[in-house]
Amino acid sequence: MAKDADSREKTLSAAVKLFSQRGYHGTVLQDILDAGGAPRGSLYFHFPKGKEQIGEAAVQLGTDGVRQFITDAAQTSGNVQAFLVKLARGMAASLERSGYREGCPVATTALETAAQSDVLGRAARTAFQTWEQEIKRALISFGMTANQADRTATAVLSQLEGALLLARTYRSLEPMQRAEKALLVLGREALK
Amino acid sequence: MAKDADSREKTLSAAVKLFSQRGYHGTVLQDILDAGGAPRGSLYFHFPKGKEQIGEAAVQLGTDGVRQFITDAAQTSGNVQAFLVKLARGMAASLERSGYREGCPVATTALETAAQSDVLGRAARTAFQTWEQEIKRALISFGMTANQADRTATAVLSQLEGALLLARTYRSLEPMQRAEKALLVLGREALK
Repeated sequence: MAKDADSREKTLSAAVKLFSQRGYHGTVLQDILDAGGAPRGSLYFHFPKGKEQIGEAAVQLGTDGVRQFITDAAQTSGNVQAFLVKLARGMAASLERSGYREGCPVATTALETAAQSDVLGRAARTAFQTWEQEIKRALISFGMTANQADRTATAVLSQLEGALLLARTYRSLEPMQRAEKALLVLGREALK
Repeated sequence: MAKDADSREKTLSAAVKLFSQRGYHGTVLQDILDAGGAPRGSLYFHFPKGKEQIGEAAVQLGTDGVRQFITDAAQTSGNVQAFLVKLARGMAASLERSGYREGCPVATTALETAAQSDVLGRAARTAFQTWEQEIKRALISFGMTANQADRTATAVLSQLEGALLLARTYRSLEPMQRAEKALLVLGREALK
């Protein structure tokens, strides 16, 4: 049972990486098996509905990872500015660590499948909404009203997602550094 | 010859749409033939190197379309604020017109292939750089220094790209409306 859970976990971690690197459609089940090291039978056991079910679970795993990252950034920051800088630098560092191969764990699948799959579209919506909520909660804890925090959280997430797209494509951290400065402007303005 | 150019154009328009709706890997040549209406022979004639060559030309066509849109927005605006509002509203309107199926014509292909294909990665880089340059040129014409315009253009493009991703996934224009307000804050701050 523990072994089963372990092979499910390995499969999903591999799927998150591969979907992020080359997209949902660009990844075939054999790639996930090769990268995750789980036997084919275990894949069918854990994901009887096939690739779409793996995609959904991978988006959920990516959602949890980024939510945890946002929570940690909030808990280790003393004010809005420190929190926003941590978001931008943490994402930049993780993009750089992956050799510019992995940006947002959800964005690629979201863009490919939003208009095609209800299941994956819903999972991607939940991902972005979860992160917006988590950013909003942090902004409120640093003194914003719910209304300010609501609008600002959307702009902060958009700024980070767009900058990750540019930074990944350019293979350069400069868009993330400029996003960091933009986030500070947006945070300061919201608190006025 | 005119007919040939016409069938090339139709094929590429279909490819831009399909890659934007379901991604590069999620689109097969038959989809492009079906949607573009060009005969298979003409596809091989115009794109002897196959799908990657179609992808490159489709990204270039998408690049030109958005660049023209930015130029038009600049030429019909009297100041930075009007220009930024036009960018956000124009992109929002086009997303809505497509039934939330087509956002940025380059982002999906960029994310899927940045780490896989040199040809497509280069085309996507050129796309974003072209748009940054066009936004920068406009910002300078409205009174920013080259330095202010350079940093602001990157932040503006990131904010728009991220908001398009969220708006498309949510099937809602709200992220674009919040992006519009964020752009105005960034524009105002840069001019201080």
